[in-house]
Amino acid sequence: MRIYLDCFPCFITQALKSARMAGADVKTQKKILGAVALKMSDGSLIGSPPEVGLVIRDIVKKLVDGPDDPYKKIKQKSTSLALGIYSSLKENVAGAKDRLLVAAELAIAGNIIDYGAKNSLNIEEEIARIVKKEYAVIKHENKALFNYEKFKRDLDSARVILYLADNAGETVFDRILIEEIKHHDKSKKILYAVKEKPVINDALIDDAIASGIGASAEIFSSGSQIAGNVLKYCNSGFKKIFKNADMIISKGQGNFETLSCSKRSIFFLFMVKCDVIARHVCLLGAKCKVGDIALLYKKGKNK
Amino acid sequence: MRIYLDCFPCFITQALKSARMAGADVKTQKKILGAVALKMSDGSLIGSPPEVGLVIRDIVKKLVDGPDDPYKKIKQKSTSLALGIYSSLKENVAGAKDRLLVAAELAIAGNIIDYGAKNSLNIEEEIARIVKKEYAVIKHENKALFNYEKFKRDLDSARVILYLADNAGETVFDRILIEEIKHHDKSKKILYAVKEKPVINDALIDDAIASGIGASAEIFSSGSQIAGNVLKYCNSGFKKIFKNADMIISKGQGNFETLSCSKRSIFFLFMVKCDVIARHVCLLGAKCKVGDIALLYKKGKNK
Repeated sequence: MRIYLDCFPCFITQALKSARMAGADVKTQKKILGAVALKMSDGSLIGSPPEVGLVIRDIVKKLVDGPDDPYKKIKQKSTSLALGIYSSLKENVAGAKDRLLVAAELAIAGNIIDYGAKNSLNIEEEIARIVKKEYAVIKHENKALFNYEKFKRDLDSARVILYLADNAGETVFDRILIEEIKHHDKSKKILYAVKEKPVINDALIDDAIASGIGASAEIFSSGSQIAGNVLKYCNSGFKKIFKNADMIISKGQGNFETLSCSKRSIFFLFMVKCDVIARHVCLLGAKCKVGDIALLYKKGKNK
Repeated sequence: MRIYLDCFPCFITQALKSARMAGADVKTQKKILGAVALKMSDGSLIGSPPEVGLVIRDIVKKLVDGPDDPYKKIKQKSTSLALGIYSSLKENVAGAKDRLLVAAELAIAGNIIDYGAKNSLNIEEEIARIVKKEYAVIKHENKALFNYEKFKRDLDSARVILYLADNAGETVFDRILIEEIKHHDKSKKILYAVKEKPVINDALIDDAIASGIGASAEIFSSGSQIAGNVLKYCNSGFKKIFKNADMIISKGQGNFETLSCSKRSIFFLFMVKCDVIARHVCLLGAKCKVGDIALLYKKGKNK
């Protein structure tokens, strides 16, 4: 998905948040905004929104000598809080009529934990929303947006599954879905791809390990340094798996933004967080609005 | 109130909306955003947010040969819809234990009708919210934010009242408060100041007349062409009244943004629509959050 003009206000917001997270003083924050605005004005912001995010991060890094991973503590807190409710969520799944469905819903609801698309986030509050099932009234009749039947069918026959991670903390919810997939069929191989270097609160290898995913899936880095996965920025190992996996499960808006035009068949599991994405999803044929949870099947080449 | 860095994303949003309202094609929208971004980057955006709004409007005017008043139809629709519920709102007031309080609450709730601070607005929905009293749970104990007692006291003794209008449609809700003031004391003179030239959906003389305010107040133009009133941009008639009125009632965020640092005593009646304003109000000593309705008394020079 390319950037839209409506993304521009968010780029400014993102620059400001990143500047503050890196510890920039007000004068430097202003410089950073100015540098990002200059890129806007000369038309040099191109690609998908996460690629623009990389440009912003580079500007911040150039102007602030901040920590390498400013979101480290926030990520650890998110993971720890999510782990705190892990057992009760597992009970929800175990007691459900359709266990896989509940596990998938939870994995998508976990996508609430997102610093990239929000101005502020109270992790406790957001996790409480998930527990209270405030996250969504899933419209199962809207098959274009929530194609659970196809998801279930493809899962049944898939042997090797590539699972693209999104944010730290959300990883615990991914774990629930992954464990459920393995619960149905131990022989499935699940490859869990995280980011190579810190980008907002996206999960890195350590975050995935801390979430306890290692026992059910192989954790590896896609090589990506942006809040999504653009093949040209990924390592060769990832590219090979991306090409050869039987099924691809993609989490979060960032992965949707970078892979919605990919040639491969992909299941996109995410919360619709802004109007631009809602419109883009509508263009793909699925009616939706901000706040909806999506299990969107994009048909493309299979393995 | 000066602009904050957090206002910058909104300036981009405002530029995009204005460009579209003026009928700009995508290429021109991009040019407009580029021009506004360039102003951001060179640090030439200064003053209060409504003053930046003027810079944006000038850029749009230079690049698009659009209508002189792009919001004309929207303003007329807002006024007409508000007039449609006028009688029932009047009944609410008439039946209330404290008529003035209900009239003041309605006048503030009418501030929901604001295209400047929102990305989109469904007038019907917003007016329905007012009718259903969804607008706010007023915390009368928070006197710093809602100083009704002082408002009532000052009203009692005021003879000449300057009332600063905000948006078209909201004007009908102002009418209710103005009529209530006159209901208590026919001898009071109320001067209702609107904008001189089209700026977003701010009320002009015609909008005020269409709202039926003319029977209870003298409608006049402040001379302002921005979404607020900065004295240096106002006409001499307005400046004189501003100096000499016994009491000033200011509606909306735009007037708050431009007059919060004025030397005069002013009652600001508005809905808190963004984090920046919420923080600024907190700085003035009144705890508040986005969505609150404010009847804020700023102490300054009296007549």
